[in-house]
Amino acid sequence: MLLSIAHIIRSKKIILASGSPRRKEILSNAGLKVDIIPSKFEENLDKTTYKDTFEYAIDTSYHKGLEVVDRMINEGKEFDLVIAADTIVTMNDKIFEKPRSMEDAVEMLKGFRGLSHVVYTGVTLIFNEGGKRNIERFHCGTQVKFSNVDLKTIEAYVSTGESMDKAGGYGIQALGGSLVEEIKGDYFNVMGLPLNSLFKRIYDHYQANSD
Amino acid sequence: MLLSIAHIIRSKKIILASGSPRRKEILSNAGLKVDIIPSKFEENLDKTTYKDTFEYAIDTSYHKGLEVVDRMINEGKEFDLVIAADTIVTMNDKIFEKPRSMEDAVEMLKGFRGLSHVVYTGVTLIFNEGGKRNIERFHCGTQVKFSNVDLKTIEAYVSTGESMDKAGGYGIQALGGSLVEEIKGDYFNVMGLPLNSLFKRIYDHYQANSD
Repeated sequence: MLLSIAHIIRSKKIILASGSPRRKEILSNAGLKVDIIPSKFEENLDKTTYKDTFEYAIDTSYHKGLEVVDRMINEGKEFDLVIAADTIVTMNDKIFEKPRSMEDAVEMLKGFRGLSHVVYTGVTLIFNEGGKRNIERFHCGTQVKFSNVDLKTIEAYVSTGESMDKAGGYGIQALGGSLVEEIKGDYFNVMGLPLNSLFKRIYDHYQANSD
Repeated sequence: MLLSIAHIIRSKKIILASGSPRRKEILSNAGLKVDIIPSKFEENLDKTTYKDTFEYAIDTSYHKGLEVVDRMINEGKEFDLVIAADTIVTMNDKIFEKPRSMEDAVEMLKGFRGLSHVVYTGVTLIFNEGGKRNIERFHCGTQVKFSNVDLKTIEAYVSTGESMDKAGGYGIQALGGSLVEEIKGDYFNVMGLPLNSLFKRIYDHYQANSD
């Protein structure tokens, strides 16, 4: 859908407030050119204050985005849109983020075997309309069912090092994909950005403002 | 799961009987080293003779694999496993393969909008056990729901040229991913290979034969 307003999008300065190579890849594969400014927001919100786990992800993405916007304004930099996102894995109301160690990753993945968990990505879009900020916050959940693999497979997977920088301790787009039996929802959301709903929001915004 | 028998797999000569860059990418990202020998089988089986559409995909993969195996044997080449696959899109019992033209692609994609279709990949594994062929055939279906995008978006998408070499006229891993609202099943299956079930089969075969 962005394709039909490509002439509008091309003129926009869009910032991705994330250092994740996977988020960058999703956007560039889908034809959206962005500049990367990783957020320096420390991901330290108190998880216990959120009734729903995805609210934590939305709030974290919000603070990531705001930090980048504030920094750009301080440095006198121009932008049209800042995209910020935070991805978490949840099972039984527990939040799993990046593992703290290899042992932690093995523990997470052991618990996922043969069961379904949900990957939530919270997204904040900060549009700059002539100095006025227009903020949209949303989330997307994808259900992921793991194969019931043996412990040796989990340990061999974690020993490849792929787990360490990924929420839930696996990367669906690489080796970790073979651990996943099926998903229900947006695949790219599991990688870190809900491509379809993100594009819908951007389209709706610029479409509405182009009429 | 392949990881825990990596020492066995590494010694095997595995052939992918497909020229699809996407199938090669799925396997190499998942850590499986293969040689590529694209099949020369002309995909011309009579679709009307199949009760279930996926049987057509399985049979096509079977003939693709056999052609490569026969050619290798004629040329005196060794192999341990040939992997062959065929991917089709089906909606209302109709089979959609690669579009014949840009207009054909637009027609296909127009019809998918706002609805769900199923992507089937038929797979044939031909194991070579000391000259004895051991053949496994299976299929995997993934449900794909398209966004209800406007015709301009479909036309803009097809004009990028991405449709032409892909069953159903879209590539989920690239620009086409933004047309997809959600999937149910194996994502890699939509790209052309059901990674999880493929690995399970290979694992089961070599695990059984290693005990």
